[in-house]
Order: sequence, then C-alpha cells, then structure tokens
Amino acid sequence: MKCETNEHLEELVAQVRSLTKHGKVADYIPALGKVNGEDLSIALYDIKKECLYAGDYQKKFTLQSISKVLSLALVLMERGKDYVFEKVGMEPTGDPFNSISKLETSIPSKPLNPMINAGALAVTNMIPGYDLEDKWDKLIIFVQKLASDAEVDYDKEVAQSEYETAHLNRALCYFMKQHGIIEGDIEELMELYTRQCSIEMNCFDLARIGAVFALNGQDPDTGETIIPKDIARICKTFMVTCGMYDASGEFAMKVGIPAKSGVSGGIMAVVPEKYGIGIFGPALDEKGNSIAGLKLLQSLANEYDFSIF
Amino acid sequence: MKCETNEHLEELVAQVRSLTKHGKVADYIPALGKVNGEDLSIALYDIKKECLYAGDYQKKFTLQSISKVLSLALVLMERGKDYVFEKVGMEPTGDPFNSISKLETSIPSKPLNPMINAGALAVTNMIPGYDLEDKWDKLIIFVQKLASDAEVDYDKEVAQSEYETAHLNRALCYFMKQHGIIEGDIEELMELYTRQCSIEMNCFDLARIGAVFALNGQDPDTGETIIPKDIARICKTFMVTCGMYDASGEFAMKVGIPAKSGVSGGIMAVVPEKYGIGIFGPALDEKGNSIAGLKLLQSLANEYDFSIF
Amino acid sequence: MKCETNEHLEELVAQVRSLTKHGKVADYIPALGKVNGEDLSIALYDIKKECLYAGDYQKKFTLQSISKVLSLALVLMERGKDYVFEKVGMEPTGDPFNSISKLETSIPSKPLNPMINAGALAVTNMIPGYDLEDKWDKLIIFVQKLASDAEVDYDKEVAQSEYETAHLNRALCYFMKQHGIIEGDIEELMELYTRQCSIEMNCFDLARIGAVFALNGQDPDTGETIIPKDIARICKTFMVTCGMYDASGEFAMKVGIPAKSGVSGGIMAVVPEKYGIGIFGPALDEKGNSIAGLKLLQSLANEYDFSIF
Amino acid sequence: MKCETNEHLEELVAQVRSLTKHGKVADYIPALGKVNGEDLSIALYDIKKECLYAGDYQKKFTLQSISKVLSLALVLMERGKDYVFEKVGMEPTGDPFNSISKLETSIPSKPLNPMINAGALAVTNMIPGYDLEDKWDKLIIFVQKLASDAEVDYDKEVAQSEYETAHLNRALCYFMKQHGIIEGDIEELMELYTRQCSIEMNCFDLARIGAVFALNGQDPDTGETIIPKDIARICKTFMVTCGMYDASGEFAMKVGIPAKSGVSGGIMAVVPEKYGIGIFGPALDEKGNSIAGLKLLQSLANEYDFSIF
Repeated sequence: MKCETNEHLEELVAQVRSLTKHGKVADYIPALGKVNGEDLSIALYDIKKECLYAGDYQKKFTLQSISKVLSLALVLMERGKDYVFEKVGMEPTGDPFNSISKLETSIPSKPLNPMINAGALAVTNMIPGYDLEDKWDKLIIFVQKLASDAEVDYDKEVAQSEYETAHLNRALCYFMKQHGIIEGDIEELMELYTRQCSIEMNCFDLARIGAVFALNGQDPDTGETIIPKDIARICKTFMVTCGMYDASGEFAMKVGIPAKSGVSGGIMAVVPEKYGIGIFGPALDEKGNSIAGLKLLQSLANEYDFSIF
Repeated sequence: MKCETNEHLEELVAQVRSLTKHGKVADYIPALGKVNGEDLSIALYDIKKECLYAGDYQKKFTLQSISKVLSLALVLMERGKDYVFEKVGMEPTGDPFNSISKLETSIPSKPLNPMINAGALAVTNMIPGYDLEDKWDKLIIFVQKLASDAEVDYDKEVAQSEYETAHLNRALCYFMKQHGIIEGDIEELMELYTRQCSIEMNCFDLARIGAVFALNGQDPDTGETIIPKDIARICKTFMVTCGMYDASGEFAMKVGIPAKSGVSGGIMAVVPEKYGIGIFGPALDEKGNSIAGLKLLQSLANEYDFSIF
Repeated sequence: MKCETNEHLEELVAQVRSLTKHGKVADYIPALGKVNGEDLSIALYDIKKECLYAGDYQKKFTLQSISKVLSLALVLMERGKDYVFEKVGMEPTGDPFNSISKLETSIPSKPLNPMINAGALAVTNMIPGYDLEDKWDKLIIFVQKLASDAEVDYDKEVAQSEYETAHLNRALCYFMKQHGIIEGDIEELMELYTRQCSIEMNCFDLARIGAVFALNGQDPDTGETIIPKDIARICKTFMVTCGMYDASGEFAMKVGIPAKSGVSGGIMAVVPEKYGIGIFGPALDEKGNSIAGLKLLQSLANEYDFSIF
Repeated sequence: MKCETNEHLEELVAQVRSLTKHGKVADYIPALGKVNGEDLSIALYDIKKECLYAGDYQKKFTLQSISKVLSLALVLMERGKDYVFEKVGMEPTGDPFNSISKLETSIPSKPLNPMINAGALAVTNMIPGYDLEDKWDKLIIFVQKLASDAEVDYDKEVAQSEYETAHLNRALCYFMKQHGIIEGDIEELMELYTRQCSIEMNCFDLARIGAVFALNGQDPDTGETIIPKDIARICKTFMVTCGMYDASGEFAMKVGIPAKSGVSGGIMAVVPEKYGIGIFGPALDEKGNSIAGLKLLQSLANEYDFSIF
C-alpha cells in the first residue's frame, strides 16, 4: 500500500505539539525515560485506499499497555472465551491500572478485566507453549502478522529495565498465584510479560494493526482472517470500556472509538470499517495517556465524526 | 404510529419466559416486591415504520435506575456539560451501584459516574426549580415528551415506600453534602429522587424513549430535537459503559448496544439509527438485571447483529 | 478536696507551651475555631490526697470525643454488655475516626469499636429514654456525678454549630440505620449526640472523672460505686487500644496509660490506682490530639513511670 | 527450676478440652495440618518460684506468628527504635493479618504494625547479617537464650512447606520492595521468614520466654538483661493492641494481658511481674486463635484477676 505524508495531518501535529510541554514522559521504568518528550507522530491507515502519516513517523516506541489487546486476542484464539473469562472478568473498573486492593476485596478474587495489569498478567500467563521461547514465538509472530512486518521485535534494554523494576507486577502475580488465577513460574512470566510490553514499532505499524481491528480481524491487504470477528469485537469493546486507563469514560464521551494507550505514549485507535490509527507522543497527562495524542484524536473525531455512539 | 403484536417476538418471549424461574423479584423496596415474577413483555420501536410488541405489553412498571439516563439528559440540557461534570465523573466503576466507599477513597470525593446512585442523586440535585414541585414538573414534562404520552406519572405507593426505606441513599446524600457535591435540603431531594425512580410506564412508552436516543435526540414522529445530539450521545455512551450495573462490560461484549436497566426489571435499549426497545421482566439475576430481558436482547442482537462494536 | 496550683506542673506547662505554635486549632466546626490556640492547662487528681493544677485551669472546653467514653459507660450500665457489643465491635482500627468505608466492607457491617464516630453514634443511640430530653437528662446527670459538679452542662453555641455541619455523622447514621445498627429518628439522635459532644467543663472536672476510672468506677470522695468495676475496666481498655485516634498505638508505646482525647484539645488520662488527669490544649497535631497535651503526658509518664505495660 | 504437673491446671485443661471439637486445625500450610486437633497443653512459669504444667506438655509446635514478637525484640535491639519505626507503624488495624489493601491505600505505604504479616516481614528483613545463615544464627541464638534451651531449632518440613506455599507473603514483600520498605533478595527473605515461623518448642519453653517479658526482659534464672526494659515494654504493648489477630480488642477486654498467638495453636501470654504462660491447642476459632487456649486464659484471668486494666 502506498504511504505518504499528509499536509492536513502535518498541520494538526504542528497545532498540538506545543501541548507536549504540559505533559511528562514516564520515568518509572528507567529505560523509558530517555525519549524526547516533544516527539509526536501519527499514521492513519485508510482501509480502502492509502495510509497517511505526519510528524516523526519513523520514530520507534514500545507498546507497553497497548500490547494487552494483542495478547488478549491471541489468547482468546488459542484458549477460547470460556477458558479466559473464567479467570479474568469483563467489567470496567474505577481503580488504577496497577491496583491490588480490588483483587483482595473482590470475591472471587479475579482481575476485573484484561486491560488492567492484573488481568493482562493473567492473560499472558495463558499464552500456550512448552517454554518461554515457545510462548514468545507465538506472540511475536502473531504481532508481526498483524503489523505485516516480520521485523517487529522487542527492545531488549527496555525489557531488561522493566524486568528489574517490576516489583508491583510481581506482587500482583504472587497474589493471583495464591488465589489460583495464575500458575507456573512467576519469573518466567515476568520475562514474557516484559518482552511483550517492550515490543517495538513505529506509528505506521501500529496503525496497520488498528486497521486489522477496523476490519473486524481481516488483513487489509490480503483479506485473510487474522482474528475471528467475535474476538476482534471483544477486543474493541474492551478498548472502549477500559482502553484509556482511568480516562476511558471521558474518552468514550469525547472521541467515542476503540482505543488503547500505553505509558510509552503510544495510542492505537480504531474507526470501525474505516481507519486504523497509530500515534506516538511520549509526553503523558496525569492519567498516563499521551497528552498531544489525545488532542489529535479529539480533533480528528470532531472533524470526521468518528464516534460510534 | 401503528403498533401491533408480532409473532416472532411472541415466540422469543415464549422461549425465554421459563428463565424467570431462575430470577428473583427485587424486594428491598417493599412495594416493588408485589409484582408477578413471571411477567415478561417487549416493545420494539422501529424508527422507520412501526412498533411491534409481545408478551404482557400493557403491564406498567416503574423506571427505577432507567430514570438516571433521563434526569441526566435533562440536567445536561439545563445546566451544560461543564457544570454537571465538575461534580460527577465520567468513568465506569467496578464497585456496586450503591457503594459509598469509593466516595471516601477518591480524591476529590466526587461520584465516578451518573449511573451509580451517588452520581444520579447529584444529578437530580441539579434539576433547576424554585421548589420541589417546580423541579418535578420540569422532569415529568420532559419524560412525557420523550414518551409522547402526557399521561405518564409516578406510582405514589412505590415512591412512598422507597422514600421510607432509602436510608442508604440518604447516607450517600449527606456524605456528598459534606464534600460540597450536593447542596440544599436532603429530604426534598429524596422526595424528588424517589418520585423520579417511581415514574411508571409500559414497555411501549419505554421503547419510544429508546427511539428518541436511537435518533440522537430527535422525536421519531415529528423530527423535533428533544435532546441535542451531543447530549444524546453522552447518554448512550454512559449506557454502554455503565448502564447494566456490574454486568455492563459483559453486556457490551455479548449484546453491544446502549442499554439501561432498573431493579423493577425494566430495560431500555437503543440500536442506533434503527430501534428503541423497551422490556419488562421483573425477575432479576444476581447483578440486578432482568434475567429474561437480557436473554431477549442477546437473542435479538445475535439474530440482527445489533452490536456497535 | 483541697486543690492548689503546683510549681512543678507550672514548669512543665511553661516548657511545652511553645509547642502550641506547631499545632492547629480544629476549625471544621465553626464554633470550635474561636479558641486561643496558646491555651494550655492541666489538672492532676491524686486519688489519695489532693488535686494539683497549672496553666489556664479555669478555661472551659467541650469534651467532643472524650464524651464517647462516658456515654459508653452509661450505656453498658443501662443495657448490659451483650446488648451493646452485639451492635458495636471491640476491635481497634487503623482507619480514620470518621471513616465510612469500613462499615461497607465489613460483614456484618457493624462499627469496629465505640471510639470511632460510627460506634459512638450507635452507643448514644442506645441511651434509654422516652424522648430526647429524657435521654439527655440521663446522660448529663451521669456526667455531673462523675465530675461531682452539678453545674456541668453543654455549650449551646457549639452544639448548634455541630448540629448544622454534621453531615458526615448523618451519613454514618443513615448507613447504620440501613443495616439495622441504629434505629429511630436520626435528627433526634444528631441533637442528642451534638449535645453530648458539647458538654463543657474545665480540666479539673475532667481530672476528677479520670480519677473515677483510676479507682475502677469508685467516687474518690465518697467511695460510692458510680461505674461497676468490669465496665470501668472495659472503658479503660478501649482508651488504651483506641483512645487517641490513629496515634493510639504510638501513645500506648510512649505513655502507656488509658487516655481519651477530643478535637477540642481536651485529654482525659488515667493512671490506675493513682491519678486522674485532665488537660486542655486546643492546638492539635495532624492526628487530632492536643500537641502540647501529649508532650505533657509523655513528660509526666517518663518522670513517674506511668506505663501499665 | 523445678517443674511439675499441677492438679488445678489439669482440671482446667480437662474442662476446656472438649472445646477443641468446635475448632479447626490450620491447614493452609500442608505440613501444619498433620497435628491432632485435640491436643492441649499449658505451662505456667511463676517467676518467683516454680513452673507448673498440664496436658500434653511434651508436644512440640511451631511458633508461627508468635515469632513476630521475638524478631521484633531482636531487631529493636540491633537497629534501634527510630530505624525500625521509620518503616513499620505502631498502630493497631481492623484488617486481617495478611491484608495487602491497606498497604496500597495508606500514604506512605508502610505496614501499620509489626504483628501483621507485612510488618513482620519488614522486621525480619531488618535482621542484620551478611547472609542468610548469619541472620538466622542471630535469630535462633536469641530465641535459644530466651527459652534457656540451646536445643531449640526450626522444623524443616514445616519451613519447606510454608516456603513453597507462601505466595501471599511474596506478594506483600514485592509490594513493599516497590515502595522501599523492604530491600534485598525476596527469596532469601522468604527462607529466613519461614524458618522463623517454623521455630519449634513445647509449651514450657514458650512459658519461659513469656517469663522473660513478665520480668521486663530479665532472665528469670540469672537476672541477666536479655532484652532492655523499654524494648520489652514495646513488645508487650504490641501484644496487647495487636497480639491476637482480629480478636485483640476482645481479648484485651476479657483477659487483659499481653499475649501473642500463632496459627499453629500456640499462645504466649505474659502476666507482668508474675507469670509467663505457654499454651498449645491447635484447634483454632475463626479468628485464628486456639479455641481452648483462649478459654484457658480467660478462666485463669478471672480466677486470679490477671488484667492490667
């Protein structure tokens, strides 16, 4: 597919780039803190004809929480809905993404949904495979297929940095192991999960993955079904109800499309039957979403009436 | 508009009516407990041509939590979005609809959204008017307009019964008064709120209101704008993210349309640009949703591919 | 009994008075905020021979939370232990004195102990009597007897001010009414409770009440049993485990005697078989205890080895 | 010191042994579940003259939570009060001993006291030493000295069983590591902590340790100061406010002495200046305390007026 820069998108990027000054790059994972807070890029993958981009579109970033949608899709395909949702719930939550309290106060103590850390860890724990590398291969090959880019890999420095500092995720894992939600070796799971979070791509790859969801799981180039329709729909539903951390509700009001953000500043957004969108803007607002990325999406949504509501 | 019974709907009703045995009529409000648990009715308002109904369609029921959507629409129109969302949040919550804990642990202590009791009480507190009757008039006239039925009123016995037993709602109100979310006399607010919850109609009226939302606020008969489009959209968004109590997420996966239920067993559902649906089935599942009503919606959604996702 | 100023106590008062600068007078109840933050007084009632005082000993103050011990003693005498502890627990809590969350998350939802607001409200609700004035008479006559001062009454301005602003306590009451812990009219209870909190005396009266507890319920002058020994012991135990708000544990370590403080800046302390102590110092630390009062007690405890541990 | 069976104690044991039928042996740690639920023994160490015992006094049991008092005493001696209480609080809590929620909702997120698991883990983490064995030596030698029994060691089977199943404690550790309360290798800490919990002795040894606390830290045989007085006092204070899990408040009312229980069914109790008491009765009530052991202490407390209040 032909890809080119787009003047209107460039104008939008120029307009909102100043917002990056009001945000803050995530630095709780040391290796994440090294990026340039003023970076901003967007790619828009029109499923019918072309892809457009603007800004620093060649810059790569790690998926972080965006990867939760992809591992969920894979695990739903590999394990089936019943298996997955016996251990992870379907409900949005008003608690922070890394909260452990709710696990304790809920009976049974299963994670409320797969978009919070506890739920995502439980999902990644379900990736089938006989060892770490086998599980990892399943995941990365699936992501490469979604992005139609066999070069997609993970950033080893970020993964290592996350692995060393992920004590809170370890706490969540051991708590869930105690309650039978997670099984197996926790350190292996932590390595798989930190690799998953550290999968690296640019905004064009991410837009391309969004386009697969916009097509309910079909490859926009070949028409092949990469994800079955009902599973693509489940993923999009989670993106709407819990994709943007504690600002998911507000985002649904103001933009109204499935989207998932990560603390790296990435956002994958989906305009059903129309566009996949990939954004990278590492300066975050206090909820953990790309401050300029949100504004870009809001402008486009208003202009082109994106909302599914 | 011509209204008639519909054979296919009657078949569906007959198929799921046996589910009512597995549900339980709400009895925490004494006057609510008097209904027949086996009742089941549905009306489907096709915005293009006709309305269809099946089951005990003439049976009236009180709106209960369904009314939260209507008071929200009114208050957004009367007060504006900024005013309302300064005091009530936009985020879904994994906590029960009547929870008070989150008010205490959140900073600032504002209700997470207008679909939980705390948020709905704060919204009703914003209905403008110089006294109780003036505020009530504004609300009931608005509801009559939505239903296109000037006879719609509230059930005085249910309202009285709720008023006398609503200690938990009083606790929520005083807690919010302490924190500046609610102002004025709490007993007056309780009377207004219990009237609102006790607004009574049949499934056809409710389907007609759903049709207004399906048309983004337009009257399906006259084309008049009863609710501005942006406000209708906000209401539909809340219905998706938090309309079905703690089963909202699961409902979004399995049915995928804006809907709001009440403990009376009513459900208002909206298929954008197509249908308004009203259901009454007072036997509830453990989450507080009509057990047969949910099944009816799921069957229709599968058959006609309702999901917006 | 002969009462006189004491040079050593005056020295101690002079030494710690400067601490009042680092504290803050409670102002969440408007009428409470009017006092002079630099006030400081202490009375020490030696049960064997004399009473000593120092500082602004003639200054009156309201009991506030100190009254919780007195209403508890009365209600245990009038209702019996089984009746009281069926509705109020015996366990200390790490939550704030005015918390409502724990009521919601505990099953059954009974207040953890009678020293937090919820528990104290439930206790006051148990004062027997056919109407407000009858209940009030029972309480104030009991307090007058403890203080051996028939002039003890409540401060009407403070009571009125608390009554008007006690929305949080109303929330607690309605929540407990919902759960069957409290019964009857909430506004009447609020009036009784705010009067109780507004009972006014000086540090000498308070020391005299402390002396009754130091004697396990006996009147230090007449030897009459005002409170049965087992009930006096229960009250002292609660003072140790939960008497000083969220600093009770630390106080037990550092001072080690039964004591109860109030946001007015009063502290009643008990050295078993030896002294009753009354202190007034309205400048509070962040936990709500008299900042200079705590230091006075700590100095005395170190000097005379007060600790019961 | 001469030790002999005592007829009166044997009678008491016989009287309450039937209670063991209403209790339940802890089985969440597999190796703990193997004991005989009807076992019951008591030793009472009179600091002035003799030690008395009754029941199955020769039976050994593991200390479990009782060990929290001993590691606290050691760490306070080795590190000083300021160091310890900067990381662990002094306040009782109404939450379960193994709760993680409060760590999350408290700011700063430090454990409320050293008697809950989180606090005890943080304390054990402060035992000085250059490696696991060095730290362990410090602890076990201290315990041997307290028991005056150089044979005291840990039960390797129980320790191994606890180590393998302690996922909840691992969760607490990683959570605290995230928040800077705990440092170093978690698996090493888990091994040290599970050894500590698995220290094994009979009721006589335990009574002897209680006697050291009854004497404010002095060895009852030699008069040597094993624990400084102020630290012994701190330990006794924690035993009163938080020694008996969520029944500490009730125990303070009904028995009124410092005591610490463990899920093995052991209780160490202290009657200041008089007795050290060791009890073993593995059938537990729902709070986790020895059901017959509690009754034994209550009978003795009533008969001999033990209460410090």
